[in-house]
Amino acid sequence: MHAITIPEPGGPEALVWSEVPDAVAGEGEVLVEVLAGAVNRADILQRQGFYNPPPGASPYPGLECSGRIVEIGPGVSGWAVGDEVCALLAGGGYAEKVAVPAGQLLPVPKDLDVKRAAALPEVVCTVWSNVFMVAHLRPGETLLVHGGSSGIGTMAIQLAKAVGAKVAVTAGTPQKLERCAELGADILINYREQDFVEEVRKATDGAGADVILDNMGAKYLDRNVNALAVNGRLAIIGMQGGVKGELNIATLLGKRAAISATSLRARPPAEKTAIVAAVREHVWPLLDAGHIRPVVDRELPMSDAAAAHRVVEESGHIGKVLLVTQ
Amino acid sequence: MHAITIPEPGGPEALVWSEVPDAVAGEGEVLVEVLAGAVNRADILQRQGFYNPPPGASPYPGLECSGRIVEIGPGVSGWAVGDEVCALLAGGGYAEKVAVPAGQLLPVPKDLDVKRAAALPEVVCTVWSNVFMVAHLRPGETLLVHGGSSGIGTMAIQLAKAVGAKVAVTAGTPQKLERCAELGADILINYREQDFVEEVRKATDGAGADVILDNMGAKYLDRNVNALAVNGRLAIIGMQGGVKGELNIATLLGKRAAISATSLRARPPAEKTAIVAAVREHVWPLLDAGHIRPVVDRELPMSDAAAAHRVVEESGHIGKVLLVTQ
Repeated sequence: MHAITIPEPGGPEALVWSEVPDAVAGEGEVLVEVLAGAVNRADILQRQGFYNPPPGASPYPGLECSGRIVEIGPGVSGWAVGDEVCALLAGGGYAEKVAVPAGQLLPVPKDLDVKRAAALPEVVCTVWSNVFMVAHLRPGETLLVHGGSSGIGTMAIQLAKAVGAKVAVTAGTPQKLERCAELGADILINYREQDFVEEVRKATDGAGADVILDNMGAKYLDRNVNALAVNGRLAIIGMQGGVKGELNIATLLGKRAAISATSLRARPPAEKTAIVAAVREHVWPLLDAGHIRPVVDRELPMSDAAAAHRVVEESGHIGKVLLVTQ
Repeated sequence: MHAITIPEPGGPEALVWSEVPDAVAGEGEVLVEVLAGAVNRADILQRQGFYNPPPGASPYPGLECSGRIVEIGPGVSGWAVGDEVCALLAGGGYAEKVAVPAGQLLPVPKDLDVKRAAALPEVVCTVWSNVFMVAHLRPGETLLVHGGSSGIGTMAIQLAKAVGAKVAVTAGTPQKLERCAELGADILINYREQDFVEEVRKATDGAGADVILDNMGAKYLDRNVNALAVNGRLAIIGMQGGVKGELNIATLLGKRAAISATSLRARPPAEKTAIVAAVREHVWPLLDAGHIRPVVDRELPMSDAAAAHRVVEESGHIGKVLLVTQ
């Protein structure tokens, strides 16, 4: 089979479409013929040499894919050869085949193109596990999503609206904010021109956001805490704005607020299985009914993953960038 | 009636035992004849002028008391004149009488002197709401309690042991650590001589603490995050070590950990009622059975509250300091 390898860490050109040994389905795994993968920021860090795959994971990048099951490993039930699936991966999605623990498989939602389903696993599992399983967003509450037009952001908007929450988003251009509005966002904040703390307060009668989904880390820490409502929950899933930030504990305590930080990739398989099961129970019916949809910016050939990385690094895209094998 | 008033903020001498108008039970309240109150650090901040009572609260200090119901206000059921009770207060416990919302009353536990019951409401509600309702300490997990010999600390040790957790404590003298050990603490750390991060790791095979109950705030923030286990929860309830601390988000994210900060006094009555109800359900049976007990350092006359504040400010005490009216 072919896969994207990284002979030397570096820029997009470090991604090389290479002949490699076929993936093999081990105990509890199935082998998936990959029709599409999707780009995540973690892939870029891995390409640059800053994010090594966890022990036991495939050495190739790629945290999600969609395709067809071509082989069932020992000890797997409930899935059959030929099933169209998408999957959450610890790595290996930039390849023609990948071995997947059965607990990380999801069916392709009804009436959705199998390739577009590659845009789902990471964003749905990340949003559900953080916004709902950790931060417990409830109907009527306000969610602030930073990077509203990202893959994560576009899914967070749709899921929060589906449960009856009010949604505020930040983004850097009017075009991106317009797309967020089409997906249901109620409060649109251009972070280049507006102060998100002030805008969120204005739009909530001074109360602030009940939940914030943040990918900026240190750079936004103090402002995020200021933007929280009483009993608010800040869920950090990225550190694009740095690692070490100043925390004003008095502000946090005065609001009886909480901060969590998680990543999906490093979780042990049992936790991933639990998240995938929760997602299948709570989110899949919404996808099957067409109430929510993956937002795909474009499809590019997997063999030219470098081009896809350039698109993501330029940050002009909206939603997910897919890598298709054929 | 008499109450401790604070004509001018200042040192312990600012506390003046004065003749004041009688407290009156309003709608949904009972009037309690106070037999004992207890000292909390918030009372010292209030005396110094740094912690104003929340709107609607009594101007006198005192966040908890015990005594006898002498009058039932309109709209109260389930309590009768003569009942021996203890109560969580928004203020007014340093007085001969105090009006208490019925939802903040608790019966005096079986076989416990009514005066000693004044040592219970703040510590039990604080520990239960933070360690159990927010941080969800589970059997087999490890709790690290800073200030293990304080009122809060002595109750946290007992409650955590009662649910089957392992308990680590920090304190500043061998005498205090010995008392913590008598209450059930498994891991004793003298913070003047030992590094609590290292000691907690050593005692947990490198894993760290699942839950930390912290009263130090900024000064311990970075070390607390370092001492947390994967999926760990840091519950901050005090800022004796300052307000603004540096948070390493990468460490937090790598552990999928969370930080919460709360105070009890500022909560709206509905939240206090919910906490008191949970405490009555989960903690009161343990008190009635004698499995846990309030730890009382000494009883001093309420009219000389200044002496009691001096004891607490010198930090030589173990457990709670009570203020008795007769």
